[in-house]
Amino acid sequence: MGSVARRDVYTAQSLLEVAVGVFNERGYDGTSMEHLSRAAGISKSSIYHHVPSKEELLRRAVAHALDGLFAVLDEPAAGEGRAVARLERVVRRTAEVLMERLPYVTLLLRVRGNTDTERWALVRRREFDQRVAELVRAAVAEGDLRPEVDPRLATRLLFGMINSIVEWYRPHPGEPVVSGDVVEAVISTAFDGLRQPAVSGSAP
Amino acid sequence: MGSVARRDVYTAQSLLEVAVGVFNERGYDGTSMEHLSRAAGISKSSIYHHVPSKEELLRRAVAHALDGLFAVLDEPAAGEGRAVARLERVVRRTAEVLMERLPYVTLLLRVRGNTDTERWALVRRREFDQRVAELVRAAVAEGDLRPEVDPRLATRLLFGMINSIVEWYRPHPGEPVVSGDVVEAVISTAFDGLRQPAVSGSAP
Repeated sequence: MGSVARRDVYTAQSLLEVAVGVFNERGYDGTSMEHLSRAAGISKSSIYHHVPSKEELLRRAVAHALDGLFAVLDEPAAGEGRAVARLERVVRRTAEVLMERLPYVTLLLRVRGNTDTERWALVRRREFDQRVAELVRAAVAEGDLRPEVDPRLATRLLFGMINSIVEWYRPHPGEPVVSGDVVEAVISTAFDGLRQPAVSGSAP
Repeated sequence: MGSVARRDVYTAQSLLEVAVGVFNERGYDGTSMEHLSRAAGISKSSIYHHVPSKEELLRRAVAHALDGLFAVLDEPAAGEGRAVARLERVVRRTAEVLMERLPYVTLLLRVRGNTDTERWALVRRREFDQRVAELVRAAVAEGDLRPEVDPRLATRLLFGMINSIVEWYRPHPGEPVVSGDVVEAVISTAFDGLRQPAVSGSAP
């Protein structure tokens, strides 16, 4: 054990938090067990006491992000009522989960597919997107969304907007982790657009 | 010169294209001159004949993206008429430039700020975002955009949507590089939202 090593007081969860921070900072490919050991301040063998590999840390991290996202689709409210209302609920909850699990979702969104774990994460992400695209399609069929936008394309733009939150959202210490203002801005921009509707019958 | 080296038939521009492809594939940090030499099929000294450093290739690549984007703000139509019309024009042209210069803008959007060139690129990106945010602010002041969304936040969501195009847009060979459908979907989603407006006075 190196002289810099502290006593290992990590749980699997708290070690994962450190690893996710390093992965987001250096990129997963650019991170070695040595980097993780230095960031955690414990020896490499202490890390191996918790997890068998760097890839297992990645798997647990993206699983945490994916579990949060898929749970949104399985909430009771996501299965009831008109498709547009279910879609709005899913968009709202997705934005919230993204902020709640910010570093985990950030990592998930940067995964590129060089390892089995990364390929699995990409498959799961695509599955999530497809389930949301089905909701968009259903809402178009029910006449609640504009029919001229292709559902696949609309879903991509919707996620483009939601996922971009990881690029700039940094809650201040002491503030709630989830910003209601951000959630409302996403909902109103996505569903009603930025334009102020013309007031019909107003004076010229 | 290694035995794999071909005769150097590159121009500065065609070598840059190869380099941008490698940067996007491996990440800028993960790319060595050796990788560039292998991808181009010419020796490292041939590459040095064109450019003094890897960072200079990065600078030229992100400059190409930034020049395209800033040119949008300086087009005559971006300075005339109501702010909302100028904003719509800027959003449309930004989406077009993104598709026209897809690998260059992709690289620009992935830059993280580890070198002077990357920091410069981040400063320029922020400047671009601020100029668009000013247009959003002006359009709100003129009563053409909803006042309840914060201009800074609206701009971020707008760019989230536009910039996400680099993640999934891949023109098929033989098709136009710019997809009119994608541009129209961005404009209609951003300004009017996905929701079908209620028909006033319709039967219940």
